[in-house]
Amino acid sequence: MKLMDIFGTLKRDMDFIERQLYRSIDGDDELLSETSLHLLKAGGKRLRPVFVLLGGKFGNYDLERLQHVAVPLELIHSASLVHDDVIDDAGTRRGKPTVKAKWDNKIAMYTGDFIYAKALVLAAELSNPEIHRILSKALVQMSIGEMEQIRDFFNTEQTVRNYLLRIRRKTALLIAISCQLGAMAAGAPEKVSWLLYRYGYNVGMAFQIRDDLLDLCGTEKSIGKPPGSDMRQGNITLPVIYALQEPKLRDSLLHEIHGIRAQDGAGDVSKAIDMIISGPGIGQAEKLADRFISKALEALEGLPENKSRAHLKEIALFVNKRSY
Amino acid sequence: MKLMDIFGTLKRDMDFIERQLYRSIDGDDELLSETSLHLLKAGGKRLRPVFVLLGGKFGNYDLERLQHVAVPLELIHSASLVHDDVIDDAGTRRGKPTVKAKWDNKIAMYTGDFIYAKALVLAAELSNPEIHRILSKALVQMSIGEMEQIRDFFNTEQTVRNYLLRIRRKTALLIAISCQLGAMAAGAPEKVSWLLYRYGYNVGMAFQIRDDLLDLCGTEKSIGKPPGSDMRQGNITLPVIYALQEPKLRDSLLHEIHGIRAQDGAGDVSKAIDMIISGPGIGQAEKLADRFISKALEALEGLPENKSRAHLKEIALFVNKRSY
Repeated sequence: MKLMDIFGTLKRDMDFIERQLYRSIDGDDELLSETSLHLLKAGGKRLRPVFVLLGGKFGNYDLERLQHVAVPLELIHSASLVHDDVIDDAGTRRGKPTVKAKWDNKIAMYTGDFIYAKALVLAAELSNPEIHRILSKALVQMSIGEMEQIRDFFNTEQTVRNYLLRIRRKTALLIAISCQLGAMAAGAPEKVSWLLYRYGYNVGMAFQIRDDLLDLCGTEKSIGKPPGSDMRQGNITLPVIYALQEPKLRDSLLHEIHGIRAQDGAGDVSKAIDMIISGPGIGQAEKLADRFISKALEALEGLPENKSRAHLKEIALFVNKRSY
Repeated sequence: MKLMDIFGTLKRDMDFIERQLYRSIDGDDELLSETSLHLLKAGGKRLRPVFVLLGGKFGNYDLERLQHVAVPLELIHSASLVHDDVIDDAGTRRGKPTVKAKWDNKIAMYTGDFIYAKALVLAAELSNPEIHRILSKALVQMSIGEMEQIRDFFNTEQTVRNYLLRIRRKTALLIAISCQLGAMAAGAPEKVSWLLYRYGYNVGMAFQIRDDLLDLCGTEKSIGKPPGSDMRQGNITLPVIYALQEPKLRDSLLHEIHGIRAQDGAGDVSKAIDMIISGPGIGQAEKLADRFISKALEALEGLPENKSRAHLKEIALFVNKRSY
C-alpha cells in the first residue's frame, strides 16, 4: 500500500501541489530546470506537503496560501537530498540515477543551491515573517545535522544520544515544521500548531529510525538502492550503535566496520549486516521507533477530533509499519 | 591604498559589523564555526557591508537595523565563495588555503549551506517581507549565474552578451541590492533606493570586469593566487572574448585554449595570456569597465548631495583603478 492511498480526499489538492512544484523550478535556466525536474520527477512520498495540507485543515484551509508553504518545504527536502547525494556518492535514489551521477557533483551542488533559493522566493510571497524565521532556522539546523553526519562517519564511539540529536536536525525538524506551518498559514490557534509540531517531530524521528532499519533489513527492490549503503559510507545508525553495545558482538562487529572503512565503501557489508540482525539491535531500534509513534499519537489526542486528525493517526501508524 | 582608507568615518561601524559577522556563525557546531570562521577571517574588502552602511546614510541611519542587512549580504557573498572554490578546485583564496583545501569538498559544501541559512535567519529578524523577497530572488539569480559559468567553461563561442549576463547574476546583482537594501532598511525614499541599486549594479559590473582583467594582468602577489586561474579552469572572460574576435589572434588563441583544456587545468597558460595582452582585448575590456563606471556616477547625480554620495563616488573611481 502506498501512503497516498490513505487519503484519496487530498488527491486533487496534492495534484495541484505537484504541478506547482514543477512550475516553481521552471524557466530560469535550461540546465537548472532539467536537473531540478529530474530530481523532483524521481518521485518521493511528498510527505511534507501532505502534512502541510493536513495541518491546514485545522484552520481556514486555503490551498492558494498553503502552497506557499507546501511547495517550499518539499523543495527544501529535495535540495537537501541532492546535496546529500554528493556526500554519499550515491549513484541511484529511488531506483533512478542521481543528479550527481547523471551530471556531476558541481552541477548537483548548484542544483541544490538553486532549489533552496527557489523555496525561499516562494515562501517570501506569503509575507509572514514568522514563517520565514521558522524556515530559515530549520535550514541552519539541517546543515548542522548534515555536518554532524559527515563528522561522525565511522565513529563507532557515538552514543544513542548523538544519533537522536543528528536525526532530529536532519529529518524530524523539517517534518515537524511542515505540520506546524500548515496550521500557522491557515491561522489555526497557537496551541494547535504547537501540538502538530510535536506530532510531526515524533513521527519524523520514527520515520528516520525506520528508514535506517530498512537500509539494513530491506532488499534492493524495496528501497530503490543496494541495502547496507549506510554501512558502506560509514553512517553509523541506531541498530548499529545498539549492536556495538552488545559485549558478545562488539569486537567482531568493530573488526568488520574497520574492514569496511579500509576498503573505502567498496567492501562487502553483508557479514556486518548479518551480525547486527542476529543481535538485539534491530528489536531495540524498533522499540524506540514505537515510543516515538506513541508520543506522536499522544500529541494528536490534544487536537480537535476531525478527519484530518484521523489521517494523521493513519500516517503515524503507516510510518511505523515494518516493511522488511 | 586600501578601500577602507577612503572612509575612516565608517571605521567604528564597520568594526561592529565585523564583530557581528563573527558572532553570526558562532556556537552551533564546532566544526561549522571553525570552517566558517576560517572563511570569514581570510578577509576580503567587506564591500557589501560598506555599501549597506553608505546606502543607510540616505535614510534614518540605524546601525542596529542595518546590521540585519549588512551581515547577511556579506555572509551570502562568503557562502558563494566557498561553493565557488569547490567548483574552481581552488587551493588558495586571498593568499590563504580555501575551506575545500584545508578540509574537503563535502565540508566546503555544507559550510556554504550553513552560512547561507545563517544569513537568512539574520535577515528574517528584520520582519520586512520586501527585503526577504529581494534577498531570496538574488540567491536564485546567483545560483543561475554559477550554473551558467560551469556550462560555459571552455565555450569559446560565447558572446560579450553571454558574459555580461553571467557577471550580472554572479556579481553585480548582490552589490546592487547591498546599496538598495541599505537605503530601504533605513526607510529612504523609493527613488533613492532605486538610484542606489543602479549605482551598485554598474559598479558591480565594472568590479567584475576589473577582477577578470586582474586575473590576466596581475601578479600572484597582487591577487593572492596564481594569475591565469580563470584560463586554467576554462572561465572565458571578457578580454578573452574580445581577443577571440580579433582575426589575427583567433586561430592561435583557440589552439592554446584547446591545449589548456586537454591538460585539464595543469597546463601552462602564459602563452595564451601573452597573446591576449598583445591584442586589443585588454583595452576594450577596460573601456567597457569605464562605461559602467560612468553610468554609476550618472546614477549618483540624482541623489541628494551628502558625504555618503561623495564616498560612493570615490569607491566607484577606486574600483576602476588599474592595479596591474
